[in-house]
Amino acid sequence: MTREKLSLFDTTLRDGQQTHGVDFSLDDKQRIARALDELGLDYVEGGWPGANPTDSDFFDAAPTLSRATFTAFGMTKRAGRSAANDEVLSGVLNAGTPAVCLVGKSHEFHVTTALGITLDENRENIRDSFSHIVAQGREALFDAEHFFDGYKSNPDYALACLHDALDAGCRWVVLCDTNGGTLPEEIGRIVREVIASGVPGEKLGIHTHNDTETAVAGSLAAVEAGARQIQGTLNGLGERCGNANLVSIIPTLLLKEPFASQFDTGIPVEKLADLTRISRMLDDILNRVPNRHAAYVGASAFTHKAGLHASAILKDPTTYEHVVPEIVGNARVVPMSNQAGQSNLKKRLDEAGITVEKGDPRLGMILDEIKLREDQGFAYDSARGSFELVARHILGQLPTFFEVERYRVTVEKRRNAKGERITVSEAVVVVEIAGERIISAADSFFGESEADQGPVHALSAALRRDLGRYQDYIDDMKLVDFKVRITNGGTEAVTRVLIDSEDAHGRRWSTVGVSENIVDASFQALKDAVVWKLIRDGAPV
Amino acid sequence: MTREKLSLFDTTLRDGQQTHGVDFSLDDKQRIARALDELGLDYVEGGWPGANPTDSDFFDAAPTLSRATFTAFGMTKRAGRSAANDEVLSGVLNAGTPAVCLVGKSHEFHVTTALGITLDENRENIRDSFSHIVAQGREALFDAEHFFDGYKSNPDYALACLHDALDAGCRWVVLCDTNGGTLPEEIGRIVREVIASGVPGEKLGIHTHNDTETAVAGSLAAVEAGARQIQGTLNGLGERCGNANLVSIIPTLLLKEPFASQFDTGIPVEKLADLTRISRMLDDILNRVPNRHAAYVGASAFTHKAGLHASAILKDPTTYEHVVPEIVGNARVVPMSNQAGQSNLKKRLDEAGITVEKGDPRLGMILDEIKLREDQGFAYDSARGSFELVARHILGQLPTFFEVERYRVTVEKRRNAKGERITVSEAVVVVEIAGERIISAADSFFGESEADQGPVHALSAALRRDLGRYQDYIDDMKLVDFKVRITNGGTEAVTRVLIDSEDAHGRRWSTVGVSENIVDASFQALKDAVVWKLIRDGAPV
Repeated sequence: MTREKLSLFDTTLRDGQQTHGVDFSLDDKQRIARALDELGLDYVEGGWPGANPTDSDFFDAAPTLSRATFTAFGMTKRAGRSAANDEVLSGVLNAGTPAVCLVGKSHEFHVTTALGITLDENRENIRDSFSHIVAQGREALFDAEHFFDGYKSNPDYALACLHDALDAGCRWVVLCDTNGGTLPEEIGRIVREVIASGVPGEKLGIHTHNDTETAVAGSLAAVEAGARQIQGTLNGLGERCGNANLVSIIPTLLLKEPFASQFDTGIPVEKLADLTRISRMLDDILNRVPNRHAAYVGASAFTHKAGLHASAILKDPTTYEHVVPEIVGNARVVPMSNQAGQSNLKKRLDEAGITVEKGDPRLGMILDEIKLREDQGFAYDSARGSFELVARHILGQLPTFFEVERYRVTVEKRRNAKGERITVSEAVVVVEIAGERIISAADSFFGESEADQGPVHALSAALRRDLGRYQDYIDDMKLVDFKVRITNGGTEAVTRVLIDSEDAHGRRWSTVGVSENIVDASFQALKDAVVWKLIRDGAPV
Repeated sequence: MTREKLSLFDTTLRDGQQTHGVDFSLDDKQRIARALDELGLDYVEGGWPGANPTDSDFFDAAPTLSRATFTAFGMTKRAGRSAANDEVLSGVLNAGTPAVCLVGKSHEFHVTTALGITLDENRENIRDSFSHIVAQGREALFDAEHFFDGYKSNPDYALACLHDALDAGCRWVVLCDTNGGTLPEEIGRIVREVIASGVPGEKLGIHTHNDTETAVAGSLAAVEAGARQIQGTLNGLGERCGNANLVSIIPTLLLKEPFASQFDTGIPVEKLADLTRISRMLDDILNRVPNRHAAYVGASAFTHKAGLHASAILKDPTTYEHVVPEIVGNARVVPMSNQAGQSNLKKRLDEAGITVEKGDPRLGMILDEIKLREDQGFAYDSARGSFELVARHILGQLPTFFEVERYRVTVEKRRNAKGERITVSEAVVVVEIAGERIISAADSFFGESEADQGPVHALSAALRRDLGRYQDYIDDMKLVDFKVRITNGGTEAVTRVLIDSEDAHGRRWSTVGVSENIVDASFQALKDAVVWKLIRDGAPV
């Protein structure tokens, strides 16, 4: 059975960029565009050329896309001038993209109130804009703004706007639920009516927003009703509550019925394995903490906590997982937690290379210690490095490579000789290794490429500056991330610091420290990171 | 027209608690239960008595709910013993709750593989368990686990399980999409078929999970198909990708068609105004950062960024908002950002009590300064206190109350006289006020009730210890939150610190600092917090 083509249109770089706090650099945009193209999307909307400098620069240095159609966004011409004489529209066309997507009004109220023009003038703006675009040899798309509200208010007018665009040669008309207030059932119903009015489904797109937490479902409902293009963004990035999340939609289209059998998105199933990485890439670019609970790609998406589920999972994963994690580039996680049982723990120890026989009483002791520490504020779900050290300690398999006699950190802000205000972080660490006492100091002008978090960096550098016989083992360690959280430790607030370290082998491990004191908490995490590395690399005791 | 009753069942304290990293204290559970009861939910599932100590304690000290039916969760009896002799089930019944909800298998594969019993034995377990519950005078609910997969695999068996439960006297049978893989359209179809098989809609519930990001839509689809109970959690809390989010569902049921006209949830529309607060309360309890982009209650839910939308919004909010923000206890935000225009800025200044005429060139200067600083890593969307100070500075309305000559922070870990390891943070701050030079010190045993983040706390305390003539103005200031983020400042990574302060008037304000150095960044934010307070309280210059 031949599958129908279903087009995917990404607007991360345009609608996503409109989000509070988002401002992609030129380099960011190029990385994202390439990733979208490699994934196999049909359209990449790059922004609004002329609207802001990074957008214009991006179109000037347009990425070479091998599959996706690069699209410029703009708006229909304004009243009182021709399409050719609207300089904003010219700016969009001058970007020279193969496709142009213009937003225009289809809701009578917006025409008369927001724009302050007549209904006929608006239709003329639509017709003339798209005729002009098509005459320039571009593929034209019409984003019909506030379509669903407009259709409910004056269906004839809303439909007329769509038909005007199609008659002028638009390849696609996209129904936009601009304020996100339309529910999926209604979206489906209206899409069917739009198609019944003579708009071909193969030319119809859907663009939802997540203001009722149904953007994904609304997109699917539109496709079930006959639409054949979905507009969305990576990670649902977008204003207010976000856009339709393509990272949730794509796996559903490829893996679940009725979509998998009925539609061909052009994205090969194997490409799904890149999805988690692409999702994280965007989080990295935005310096956002990834959503653990994201569908398909979230760190917790295949994480099974409750003891009850976990043993059934290990017997047969299909009992509890709706898709195979690896297919979307994710992984099953059976984490350490307060409620996990010994079967979880044994598995986690196996993964860390520590063998403990089932029924060994020390499994219970490890669980108890983990629980005790978690009550104090430690978090071992994330900090697997530190978790391993706790387990080794209980099992008598934790070597003492060195002792820390003391450490001190000073941060001083003062004026230098030129009278400029400067800040200096200085750390001193005293360790004892094999009977030898080593004092190391470091300050915040240490000059490495790693992120300089002042006191913590100085401490990290001082600790790793001279570890005597172990120096070679830790020379390639880098501090790559550092998260601070105020949390509960018993009855008081404590500071929890999570540190991510990386080495030249590309290994990445997380360690944790907890204290009332942020520097103390950081030091615990730093020390754990070093000890973990020494153990993993088989340093001699 | 008489509306039909639609019941809402909250499982935050049971299914929500199964989440990775969640462990409610007894006090937490009581607060949440009370909030759910006050909101007007029909059922509050408190946990699994006997399964873990906090659950059992909670049932022992059962909250007095004025409206909601307090419910204990458990599982159907195991094979080989009677319901009365199953001690796990007895533990559930002994909690003495008016309602009991038992999960049981309805998917043949799970019966034979996970449980290892025959299909008939499972049905017997269902019948006997519920007969027993009903005979004890409790309201009984059956959570039919993996129902949708089970129905697709062997519909007759799945339905038989439902009918067994109903025949035994269950008040509700709840179709659970346990692995979250069923899409809304299929949920609707199957619900219709279940009702057609003879299960009354008024006894039918739905329990979805968010593994395809459609849990909310799936719940709505089930109701549209005839189900009359929705099970979910606050903020969609739950394992993996979470449960159906009641915070998104409730406003939709109360405000949107066809639900508002057709159903009565028992929650008065006025109660919606508490929703944002309740959502945040749960985030607080879990020490989670609230989801800015959450439907209805997210901080960004009614935040309009792009200059284009913002001026239309200010003209008429209904043009871009699908519901009135205040109705769910939220507020419209027109934030400061890189892309906002002067109309946004002017509004934001108005809100801060600073009047600038439209067209004043200093508006552009403020925008430029904000943008410049945001490129360096500052974030003014959140830090409105600091934003105000930047604006005042440009407008020549920023008084200099005091100068900071220097400050120093030391963190030292050493052994005390008893040989115990201790950590001391000490800060020294030197300020100049009206020609007078004041040196203040503080250390981390300062002993206030505010969270002790060691160095930052010491710095905060030292700064506010003696501000001469201004001391009275700042005595009631408290540091209530402290967030650290590594972000981009130009080409390097910098540390951004956001501080929330509160005073005796209940005012809460946020300030920000950015530096390579966490202590320096903290000091900037602390100083801004003090200056903001002095300005707001009209301290003399």
